[in-house]
Amino acid sequence: MIILNGGSSSGKSGIVRCLQAVLPDPWQALGVDTFVESLPAAMRSSSAGIEFAPDGEVQVGAVFRELEAAWIEGIAAMARAGARVIVDEVFLGGAQSQQRWLRALAGLEVLWVGVRCQGAVAAGRELARGDRTVGMAQTQAELVHRGVRYDLEVDSTRRESLECARLIAARVH
Amino acid sequence: MIILNGGSSSGKSGIVRCLQAVLPDPWQALGVDTFVESLPAAMRSSSAGIEFAPDGEVQVGAVFRELEAAWIEGIAAMARAGARVIVDEVFLGGAQSQQRWLRALAGLEVLWVGVRCQGAVAAGRELARGDRTVGMAQTQAELVHRGVRYDLEVDSTRRESLECARLIAARVH
Amino acid sequence: MIILNGGSSSGKSGIVRCLQAVLPDPWQALGVDTFVESLPAAMRSSSAGIEFAPDGEVQVGAVFRELEAAWIEGIAAMARAGARVIVDEVFLGGAQSQQRWLRALAGLEVLWVGVRCQGAVAAGRELARGDRTVGMAQTQAELVHRGVRYDLEVDSTRRESLECARLIAARVH
Amino acid sequence: MIILNGGSSSGKSGIVRCLQAVLPDPWQALGVDTFVESLPAAMRSSSAGIEFAPDGEVQVGAVFRELEAAWIEGIAAMARAGARVIVDEVFLGGAQSQQRWLRALAGLEVLWVGVRCQGAVAAGRELARGDRTVGMAQTQAELVHRGVRYDLEVDSTRRESLECARLIAARVH
Repeated sequence: MIILNGGSSSGKSGIVRCLQAVLPDPWQALGVDTFVESLPAAMRSSSAGIEFAPDGEVQVGAVFRELEAAWIEGIAAMARAGARVIVDEVFLGGAQSQQRWLRALAGLEVLWVGVRCQGAVAAGRELARGDRTVGMAQTQAELVHRGVRYDLEVDSTRRESLECARLIAARVH
Repeated sequence: MIILNGGSSSGKSGIVRCLQAVLPDPWQALGVDTFVESLPAAMRSSSAGIEFAPDGEVQVGAVFRELEAAWIEGIAAMARAGARVIVDEVFLGGAQSQQRWLRALAGLEVLWVGVRCQGAVAAGRELARGDRTVGMAQTQAELVHRGVRYDLEVDSTRRESLECARLIAARVH
Repeated sequence: MIILNGGSSSGKSGIVRCLQAVLPDPWQALGVDTFVESLPAAMRSSSAGIEFAPDGEVQVGAVFRELEAAWIEGIAAMARAGARVIVDEVFLGGAQSQQRWLRALAGLEVLWVGVRCQGAVAAGRELARGDRTVGMAQTQAELVHRGVRYDLEVDSTRRESLECARLIAARVH
Repeated sequence: MIILNGGSSSGKSGIVRCLQAVLPDPWQALGVDTFVESLPAAMRSSSAGIEFAPDGEVQVGAVFRELEAAWIEGIAAMARAGARVIVDEVFLGGAQSQQRWLRALAGLEVLWVGVRCQGAVAAGRELARGDRTVGMAQTQAELVHRGVRYDLEVDSTRRESLECARLIAARVH
């Protein structure tokens, strides 16, 4: 497995698509966005689920955490059954978020990748994308990396997605 | 778990969203579309992966089948870890496709639902959606139900998605 | 030109795509959604622009009206230059909204079509689509038709999009 | 009016969204993508309309050109009626494509902007986006600028969309 962690608009999705293109084996992309989209619409704007404030802050509730735990178990089971999975995540809880994955992935080979991007640059890209709540990029830029341990860090501030993907692919065997 | 099986443009996605809205507990929606989107772009048009012919025929290859097996294991693991999952599927192999799920879901409570829609009506809706290869709806309308056993069948030909969802929800406890 | 007017989730877009498929000449689809998407993101949630309240009510402001007037002039000019245009609209102001178009279209041949759908059924379809603010369908179902004059009305409550499109196409020469 | 011309994946859309955010007045974004989406599905893969070859080449036919002429007339009419419009274009015909706009825009104040991006970098971004036919970026990178005259050129190879937008905005009064 490859787990990428980075703030909103740090370029994770683009790096994941490039990784899928440059890696010789078929790798599946399953990230936190896939999980959130699988939830009932009502949970995507409730205090028990996940809430996106107009200022870019994101809050998740108890039910979200329960469902997320089952999701993580499922992804781990896919990997144990032979799937190669790239997970792109936003560790709002920093080291604590990583712990949730570490427990479930015991025994699996995982490459941990931090995707850094300067807050101001990520905020500009958020504006350019036009489909995200403005403010998330800046808020999350540092927050998501607190206490998280990586095998590799890439910085998309001045590096293209494809270059970042190549750096990561070089570490996959 | 709830597994819905039906041809393209038979109305499965709409029924799933209505089910999520009418069921009191939070149910996650994870179907074959989520799986296909997780694959590398190159696999979405290769003979080893999945191919959508201009006439609406769909072919899947050996690598697709391997990854699908791991996907099914993972979904089963999510359910065992406490998630309530609605899977919407297109059983191109009929009874054989159902077998793949049955083996992995041993011990889990599953409601099997067939979503029927007359080919001509589904073909009209396919045209109205505008985002699917024209021909899939007609080709798959009967094909996907061959030999498949259901706890319940709903017919979206003349019934709204919300009505179908209510019929299904009445069978969930 | 063909102008379709109907509430949110009354099935206009599906009818438009079917119309494009069944009409022998190439007709372009340019509706109020295209106009709204062309606006700056900031105008899509401001009192001067357009606001979508959580209960499904939609308010438009003064700047929106000014830009809309120029948009209507432009669409009329396309038609005068030889384009065949299908406009799908939501006349929140009823007869008054129609007036805005009538003035600009002087001299052009226009087929006015009302797309009706019972509020409860449209609300169910809104839920099934999952991408619209719940409440708009019910609120707009009657409202948008107040005082509007049509050459033809179609009812999508129990008629498929393709059938509605065929009824409309039969009136186009 | 502001007209941006650049190859596929050169970053035009992102620059347009940033322009809308930094310019004090409301500017509408209406580009060639909006035009292509307005066409019947059948025209989006026909020799009379527009064809996207698997290698990234794009061919447009006679009917496409006729409808495009009417579209250009309509955009010009919107601008004459007071709209501020940003058009993002892909001049497959270079100077000849620009001529089509110049004729229609007589008397209007237009800022012509070339958006440059090195072919290799644009190709990488095309891969990262994952929603475009691979090959278009490289094929169009130089082609679209042949003989086209600009008031201003921005290079997105090493400059962020927001920076490019600010350079353009500084020329708008």
